[in-house]
Amino acid sequence: MSGESPLLLILDLTGTFAFGLNGALTAVRVARLDIVGVVTLGMITALGGGIIRDILLDDLPPATFRDWRYLAVAAAGALIAFAFSRGLGKLAVPIEILDAVGLSVFAVTGASKAIEFGLGPAQAVILGAITAVGGGTIRDALVRRIPSVMSEGLYAIPALAGATLTVVAILTGLYGLLAAITAAGVCFLIRLLGVRFKLNAPRPPGAPGPSDAASD
Amino acid sequence: MSGESPLLLILDLTGTFAFGLNGALTAVRVARLDIVGVVTLGMITALGGGIIRDILLDDLPPATFRDWRYLAVAAAGALIAFAFSRGLGKLAVPIEILDAVGLSVFAVTGASKAIEFGLGPAQAVILGAITAVGGGTIRDALVRRIPSVMSEGLYAIPALAGATLTVVAILTGLYGLLAAITAAGVCFLIRLLGVRFKLNAPRPPGAPGPSDAASD
Amino acid sequence: MSGESPLLLILDLTGTFAFGLNGALTAVRVARLDIVGVVTLGMITALGGGIIRDILLDDLPPATFRDWRYLAVAAAGALIAFAFSRGLGKLAVPIEILDAVGLSVFAVTGASKAIEFGLGPAQAVILGAITAVGGGTIRDALVRRIPSVMSEGLYAIPALAGATLTVVAILTGLYGLLAAITAAGVCFLIRLLGVRFKLNAPRPPGAPGPSDAASD
Repeated sequence: MSGESPLLLILDLTGTFAFGLNGALTAVRVARLDIVGVVTLGMITALGGGIIRDILLDDLPPATFRDWRYLAVAAAGALIAFAFSRGLGKLAVPIEILDAVGLSVFAVTGASKAIEFGLGPAQAVILGAITAVGGGTIRDALVRRIPSVMSEGLYAIPALAGATLTVVAILTGLYGLLAAITAAGVCFLIRLLGVRFKLNAPRPPGAPGPSDAASD
Repeated sequence: MSGESPLLLILDLTGTFAFGLNGALTAVRVARLDIVGVVTLGMITALGGGIIRDILLDDLPPATFRDWRYLAVAAAGALIAFAFSRGLGKLAVPIEILDAVGLSVFAVTGASKAIEFGLGPAQAVILGAITAVGGGTIRDALVRRIPSVMSEGLYAIPALAGATLTVVAILTGLYGLLAAITAAGVCFLIRLLGVRFKLNAPRPPGAPGPSDAASD
Repeated sequence: MSGESPLLLILDLTGTFAFGLNGALTAVRVARLDIVGVVTLGMITALGGGIIRDILLDDLPPATFRDWRYLAVAAAGALIAFAFSRGLGKLAVPIEILDAVGLSVFAVTGASKAIEFGLGPAQAVILGAITAVGGGTIRDALVRRIPSVMSEGLYAIPALAGATLTVVAILTGLYGLLAAITAAGVCFLIRLLGVRFKLNAPRPPGAPGPSDAASD
């Protein structure tokens, strides 16, 4: 992939770094793991979404294993998080922002790669969202949390929005650096607005409110 | 796959719909998720087994991503469950029945597709069972339950029975609509008898009884 | 794979048997499952790492599904564990040793197969470690434990050491039965020393000590 679209590569590496940091900080905060656990969780978070994408697109071995830069960037993010994790109490906001960065760029690169590999538009949007939320979902399952994608309304929605904009841009011939950054930016903004104002998607009719459900 | 065997397609879509409903109802009942979480869990339950099957058979991208009907049917099942979930207390029985329907048809289609792709009979039986229980196992891992396939004796056994009948029918040249429905029906019946009479497979010698183990 | 390197096959089957026993004993001890759950967890533990390896190397269907011996050996290990699980209290040590055996041989065979399939040295080391810890990680996720690979410092490190020795031996032309056994032996020893002396990798600066983190 890297040889064909340098834009995808740069975005992908940025998201990988952000998710590596994020996953490692999660390991420090939630599960209190040692350095191996921290780096492992960081790398799984960073690389999981892209690996799932490449398995589903049959582009194997995954980009991660063909191109050393993914491994290097993911490990670097995780090690930086390990080294600078002392001020734990202050890190909730950066964790959310890094997660939103990874979410945004992976939604764009996942959708874009899916179109490149011949998937239809709806499938490409869904694959973009899977790429975006995949690493974080494995992360949450491993540290035994209900995955963000299922428990927070405005987690999958921004990913779907970013992937949709990407697919529309590609189909209309407008895709390029500007369109990719715009699509990622829209995803990023929706996600941060959701975090800031604790927005939630609708709950089932008659179901208990979010305050009940948040008890975990 | 769809082009070659319309029977497989129809059964597969039926199971997809049933598992979509079932996964979404589980999301409403167990984890009290919002609409995104409900639909996500429904779609993972509906599509997970088939995706695992297609990855292991190297038939990628998975049927799910090549044929929009799978996505549509899974999403429809999940959305219907979301909309009609008000009478939550009454839904335990339908959830079990829908789960048994998905289990049965996926055991048949998984085993049948495995033979079509050249796997040996024993492997086809196991792949049928994996297809049948895969989506529900991911569902349970994500909402942090011990997966049904491991905690309920008569969950894997009916799937193995349905897959075995399918493989025997194919190898003896008797496979067709009738054989497929019979195999699925046997799986369905064994599963429902297990639920109805709380049947369990043997426990390890000296191990505590099911009443102890059920404390979760 | 089996046709090409009998050494890999023998080691792989040994690890498969050890992990089959180990996963089944875990099912008996931790989750108190019935025979189906015990055998399922044993087989997932035994076959999971190799399946992940083969998916990432695009060698599908996985060796497990092409060669009946893997299924047979994994099932045999799990059934033996089920039958002889009565003296549960005495089994903590054998579980650790069996786990170390599986870890060691899968690190070697995973790294060796990765080089055979053209991956670079760093990627082969990481894929060896993934093969080694993959089955156990799925096992832990399914019975809802924080995976060993993340919570125990000296779990991933011996796997990385064994995989590194394997890759070095291959690149220097020294790889053979002796080198493979040496690499597996080094992994095995480091792992058992870690278990025996409760060694841990460094924790994040300012983080709580291991005694706090062990409360699960």
